[in-house]
Amino acid sequence: MKHLLLIFSAIILFQPLRAQDKDSLMSTQLFGEALNSNVAYQQLFQLCSIAPGRLAGTPESAIAIDFMFNLMKSMPFDTVYKQPCMVRKWIRGNEEEAWFTTDGDNKTNINIDVLGGSVPTPEKGILAPVIVFSSIEEMQKANPATIKGKIVYFNRPMNQNYYITFRAYGENASMRVYGADEASKFGAIAVVVRSLNTATDTFPHTGIMRYKTSDVRIPGFAVSTADADVLDKAIAENPGLKIYLKCSCIEYAQVQSYNVIGEIKGSVFPARYISVGGHLDSWFNSSGAHDDGGGCIQSLEVARLFFVLGYKPQNTIRVVMFIDEEMEQRGGRAYANNAIANGEKHVFALESDRGVTTPTGFSIDASESVLQKMELWKKYFEAYGIRVFEKGGSGVDVGFLKQAGVPLAGLVTESQRYFEFHHSANDTWQNVNRREMQLGSAAMALLIYLVDQHGLDK
Amino acid sequence: MKHLLLIFSAIILFQPLRAQDKDSLMSTQLFGEALNSNVAYQQLFQLCSIAPGRLAGTPESAIAIDFMFNLMKSMPFDTVYKQPCMVRKWIRGNEEEAWFTTDGDNKTNINIDVLGGSVPTPEKGILAPVIVFSSIEEMQKANPATIKGKIVYFNRPMNQNYYITFRAYGENASMRVYGADEASKFGAIAVVVRSLNTATDTFPHTGIMRYKTSDVRIPGFAVSTADADVLDKAIAENPGLKIYLKCSCIEYAQVQSYNVIGEIKGSVFPARYISVGGHLDSWFNSSGAHDDGGGCIQSLEVARLFFVLGYKPQNTIRVVMFIDEEMEQRGGRAYANNAIANGEKHVFALESDRGVTTPTGFSIDASESVLQKMELWKKYFEAYGIRVFEKGGSGVDVGFLKQAGVPLAGLVTESQRYFEFHHSANDTWQNVNRREMQLGSAAMALLIYLVDQHGLDK
Repeated sequence: MKHLLLIFSAIILFQPLRAQDKDSLMSTQLFGEALNSNVAYQQLFQLCSIAPGRLAGTPESAIAIDFMFNLMKSMPFDTVYKQPCMVRKWIRGNEEEAWFTTDGDNKTNINIDVLGGSVPTPEKGILAPVIVFSSIEEMQKANPATIKGKIVYFNRPMNQNYYITFRAYGENASMRVYGADEASKFGAIAVVVRSLNTATDTFPHTGIMRYKTSDVRIPGFAVSTADADVLDKAIAENPGLKIYLKCSCIEYAQVQSYNVIGEIKGSVFPARYISVGGHLDSWFNSSGAHDDGGGCIQSLEVARLFFVLGYKPQNTIRVVMFIDEEMEQRGGRAYANNAIANGEKHVFALESDRGVTTPTGFSIDASESVLQKMELWKKYFEAYGIRVFEKGGSGVDVGFLKQAGVPLAGLVTESQRYFEFHHSANDTWQNVNRREMQLGSAAMALLIYLVDQHGLDK
Repeated sequence: MKHLLLIFSAIILFQPLRAQDKDSLMSTQLFGEALNSNVAYQQLFQLCSIAPGRLAGTPESAIAIDFMFNLMKSMPFDTVYKQPCMVRKWIRGNEEEAWFTTDGDNKTNINIDVLGGSVPTPEKGILAPVIVFSSIEEMQKANPATIKGKIVYFNRPMNQNYYITFRAYGENASMRVYGADEASKFGAIAVVVRSLNTATDTFPHTGIMRYKTSDVRIPGFAVSTADADVLDKAIAENPGLKIYLKCSCIEYAQVQSYNVIGEIKGSVFPARYISVGGHLDSWFNSSGAHDDGGGCIQSLEVARLFFVLGYKPQNTIRVVMFIDEEMEQRGGRAYANNAIANGEKHVFALESDRGVTTPTGFSIDASESVLQKMELWKKYFEAYGIRVFEKGGSGVDVGFLKQAGVPLAGLVTESQRYFEFHHSANDTWQNVNRREMQLGSAAMALLIYLVDQHGLDK
């Protein structure tokens, strides 16, 4: 009986696996290896430790680029190289100083960060009364005389009603990005924005601001949500209070920076490319663990999983660490421009840049037929809670490949905690969970594997 | 035109809502109110701050019971009362001391907690060589002479392969619960268990142990996963090393404790009951934020949401803070025994005791027809990521109502992080996310509302 069983098992084991069984086995292997490994999580620890505040163009970003280049070089990629691009070099300078006073003598410090790309204040800072608005539109309807010479405080909390917190972020971000540009037209001398944070705490959350249409450039700041609450109460009691703001950021001439790319040459279609990546830069105030060190390391982990499992991709796989997503997306642009200029055939590109919490699915920016094909693969993901394959945006960096008609996708993750970390000093390795991140790594690897095996044509 | 529009709107607004629209509206209102409110999150902070380590029978549990009683009294419940039951009074005593030595002189301290219900070591502690097993079964196959006089170290990490971490916990928990009882039969003098933790860190994770079949009672301990790794390496290099263990726990005579219950009297069926609860007790080493202070506060939040939204339930709603889940479940037993003795008709009972991370669904312990009816309600939950309604266990405390044929359910939450907190000092309020917890509160309230409105009969 025992011998019969062995023979029977052998028959099963050595039968050529059907494609579906193979894919199912690969799913189990990828998730198994990812969930058992500590390698990626420790790599993220190293990146966050040695190169926090790695905004494009800064010395910290150069450290991060070297780190990733050397890390990739230590792995069995066929090629590792840096892809040059010019980036802004905007430096935060000294830490900001900010307080308010109701009587001119007593000062209440508030936690504030300068917004990315801001001009500096005068060296002695700015001390001025404040006027509060809940949107750019509300400000535009106000009497300009009430704004002139004042600090405009855009004070709208994120809408907590939405399940997907990105939706609330999308609604509020314009005040941070364009608030100063618009307020300067009304004679405002600085702008303070309530941090885009779903929690009430003392971390300011920075982010890009843009000077677009105004002739006058005024500085912009983000105040923490807890300090915003304190400020609101003080303003309600003393509408005439004054805020003091000081920052010393400097914009230098542009400098050369790099995407870092590792390639696994395709065994069947070496001239067809599948890209997977995240962005290596992070804000000055942050170790960039969720945004987006984690996405970079997940992308690298896709390759490591393939190496460990001995999977030889048919198409060339490119792991891309994009630079400069936070400021001008020069890395993403350079990557797409190069691909188009070189006539590269891109089969697919995937990005992880929504925080490395538990993955829930993929957001797919591609034709209906691609979406339908991917949906057929859901069965390989569902056992790991990855259930939502939906039409939507992919990622800012891979998004530039859209002009070349490349099917794109982004990893979608559970978003409740993300905006407590995003663009702040609270975005730490300690706030990344190893298993959550690794579920995302495996999901990405599995999707890349399926595209590599089956393509995206009908 | 404007007037016509107003009239048209008025017609729509004042049409009686169909049941489905009403339920849909209730879903939006419950999630909206929950996600916008900070009340429950602050209540959890208070509970964790004033009554950490609130194991049944301890002074800390008495503080927690008073806190919940007074909190409920401050809300518009129709009745708030304590339901008595007798509980064990096992006290941890002084913090444990543990180290190992390879030469008898140099000592390496290890982070260890005594297991719940353990006997104490002799006052001078235990110093003995160690023998390692990966399961009770493996130990039972060993030569008893190799075990006698030694400390048995059950060293099996949690299986990381499973998506649902509770599965790995289920596989390993028997070593913690029955390891000492079994090892004592082979002459072991103490047991150390690798903590049931999916992360590698220095927090020991305790939990119940039981003396069941052996005449000799030996103490049991949990060592942190990081210290277990250190210990493993030391044992590999020095198999003869000795471990020192000391604990001073005491078992007193049983004492009276209480469930705390708040009732909202049913407006149509006052003698029909729907119960919702969590367990108020926590381990001695923990502030019990996820396990299960969060589940208690979510249950209370169900009532608060009903109060705030002005919802008057048809059935009587009971919010139950069960005592003694961690040791002997005397609270859950007492609640069910009382319900049966009093001939109470329980329509439904729901528990939250899987950590208050993002909810993913409900585990339903009821007939097929109940399951089918609940599945029809999924549409009201899916917009909030709550998608899995599956047959399975409910909760330990409400589980005792099963003998009375009561349909039961448990809130299912995302499990990746839970066992990093569970039964350890790492289970803190800081590790609970407000939005994640509140999604669970709203999901529970919505399910209770739907049962209250539509019942669970076919």
